[in-house]
Amino acid sequence: MPNDEQTGRGVRIAIVPDSFKGSLSALEVATAMVRGVREASVAPSLELRTCPMADGGEGTLDALLDAWGVSAQSCPTTDALGRPVTARFGLSPDGTGVVEAAEANGLPQVSDVPLQPLVADTRGVGRITQTLLDQGAREIILCVGGSATTDGGTGLLTALGARFLDAAGQPLPPGGGSLAALDRIDLTGLDPRAREVTWRVACDVTNPLVGPQGAAAVFGPQKGATPDDVVALDAGLTRLAEVVAVETGLDLRDRPGMGAAGGIALLLTAICGAELVAGSTLVAETLGLDAILDGVDLVLTGEGRFDDQSLHGKVVDAVASRTPAGVPVVVVAGEVAVPVGQMHVHGITAAFATARGPRTLDELTRSAADDITYATAAVTRLLGL
Amino acid sequence: MPNDEQTGRGVRIAIVPDSFKGSLSALEVATAMVRGVREASVAPSLELRTCPMADGGEGTLDALLDAWGVSAQSCPTTDALGRPVTARFGLSPDGTGVVEAAEANGLPQVSDVPLQPLVADTRGVGRITQTLLDQGAREIILCVGGSATTDGGTGLLTALGARFLDAAGQPLPPGGGSLAALDRIDLTGLDPRAREVTWRVACDVTNPLVGPQGAAAVFGPQKGATPDDVVALDAGLTRLAEVVAVETGLDLRDRPGMGAAGGIALLLTAICGAELVAGSTLVAETLGLDAILDGVDLVLTGEGRFDDQSLHGKVVDAVASRTPAGVPVVVVAGEVAVPVGQMHVHGITAAFATARGPRTLDELTRSAADDITYATAAVTRLLGL
Repeated sequence: MPNDEQTGRGVRIAIVPDSFKGSLSALEVATAMVRGVREASVAPSLELRTCPMADGGEGTLDALLDAWGVSAQSCPTTDALGRPVTARFGLSPDGTGVVEAAEANGLPQVSDVPLQPLVADTRGVGRITQTLLDQGAREIILCVGGSATTDGGTGLLTALGARFLDAAGQPLPPGGGSLAALDRIDLTGLDPRAREVTWRVACDVTNPLVGPQGAAAVFGPQKGATPDDVVALDAGLTRLAEVVAVETGLDLRDRPGMGAAGGIALLLTAICGAELVAGSTLVAETLGLDAILDGVDLVLTGEGRFDDQSLHGKVVDAVASRTPAGVPVVVVAGEVAVPVGQMHVHGITAAFATARGPRTLDELTRSAADDITYATAAVTRLLGL
Repeated sequence: MPNDEQTGRGVRIAIVPDSFKGSLSALEVATAMVRGVREASVAPSLELRTCPMADGGEGTLDALLDAWGVSAQSCPTTDALGRPVTARFGLSPDGTGVVEAAEANGLPQVSDVPLQPLVADTRGVGRITQTLLDQGAREIILCVGGSATTDGGTGLLTALGARFLDAAGQPLPPGGGSLAALDRIDLTGLDPRAREVTWRVACDVTNPLVGPQGAAAVFGPQKGATPDDVVALDAGLTRLAEVVAVETGLDLRDRPGMGAAGGIALLLTAICGAELVAGSTLVAETLGLDAILDGVDLVLTGEGRFDDQSLHGKVVDAVASRTPAGVPVVVVAGEVAVPVGQMHVHGITAAFATARGPRTLDELTRSAADDITYATAAVTRLLGL
């Protein structure tokens, strides 16, 4: 390890954890890690680059807000069934907005009543983005996942002024269940800023829009869709994609990821030029992770459960794949369930679990911050940093 | 860390763990650690110096046998109540014998009947040492602890030919309860080899022979002594020490450690020149720990529970205190209960618990070997060894 004597500079450590879901936010994890490094470091000078991370799912809004140093805003909108709710969102000083779609189309929000997969829609998400456009956003990051909707994003575009019409020229009722009757899309009323702004959709699945691996077949049932509903929703999305293909020349039916969140990215991509990006990559780019990892002596990351999934598009994977060769990447996690060999293949040097003995999950949850501090201190001292 | 390219030699790692009591022997722990190092090492050549350790307590005989590469022997003897038992012992190729006294005077062996603290004695221990003398032992390591006896070692010396006589010149009945009537010690029948051999007694307590911190007061009750018995045993040991002082000129009443195992070391020290040594030190010296630790790049040790006690005379402490400065000492333990700062003061670089997530003690016990391998691999890889 380079240190002051050898290089004339202090030790640099990047602290870039995900949250420990169910116990600590990414910021709290990072804070616990900072404490551990400071407790154990023997370096005459220490540069800690702290950047709480997220993967485009839960916690992404907070991670970006922390990084931007701004507070969350909120606005009135509607849930997937059109009922009034208040949604949180964020806007960076340089005009990047971030929306967690589930604030308006989330499944938990509508779980107090029988699920209505055919009529649930994304208008509420559109209302949040409208607020961001009104505030001058030049880029919108839309985090999807955990949705109750399968409407291909028609609700979202409707909120921004588009109209989805049947053969008689009448607007379709809300929700994916009516889309099989779609005849054409009327964009004359679409807010022009919807096409001027840069859209990036953070998405962690690769499912196509339709078919056996599509939005309706794979994710419909958890949104309450019966087998008949799945058929109807799949037909609706198929019809929507056909009309989109005819009207825009862009056939997105087979594009990986279009099946995410009930096809929410379909119209944004075809009409507004949105780009689908892996959530952790999007967050990494937005937070400038490459610059954070440049020239460091150690990278500390972590998450609640480090398992096979972590190595495919999650924070730990994004961090490891962006860390310069030769720099150790250490994972601290509540549960470590990755074999040593597999870890090394993915560029992770070592992983340490937080438990300091036999513990229940409850006990680990309560002592998570102290345990993270402890593990971080051990790693720091062991490396002589 | 030095490696081949810098120094022209391979990486050297010392693997010197204690047992994980209740789950793995020291040899099993060392084996699991070797597997972890081999799994993770990137060194072109690797020199592993494996030495399962012990602290003079349970597991010491096995650790020494492993190190010497000899099998355990057994001989007929008696328990603390004079009933026939078979005891294990060991003899190294160069004539060092090791006896775990509890094989013959252990408390668990006599727990099937009401405890008899006044008559329990150490003749059985003497019979084992007699066997060793008959086999030509030139040194005897006596590990004490867990005893049912408070006889000042009179039984042991009796088995070797000494006689403990009352004022009428009659031999006293066995056990500490009769010692208050001691008038003199007759050594004419003592096996001369008992004084020729080198005795070292492995002992982990500093209690004096008698008084409120003495053998009877502190350890008597757990051997079944009532308050009256404690008074009688304390008076007996006091009388024994007086007679010893008169006959040998050596007053051992206040010497720390003489209170161990019912005063078993008193006569060995006064009459046979035995030396009392901290158990972990004795084992470390016998196994040549200093040579094992010389020139290594990393020291891996461990035990079931790493706590405050570990830092006072246990294996981990002996290892840390003998490791050359600048060489990292890493503890792997089932439970880690030492604050980071305290660890560093005692020369331990870092400690890692084996749990890879929330686990019960039973689960940890079952997966201990795999977990130790995993933790060792993580440490090896992290250090780039």
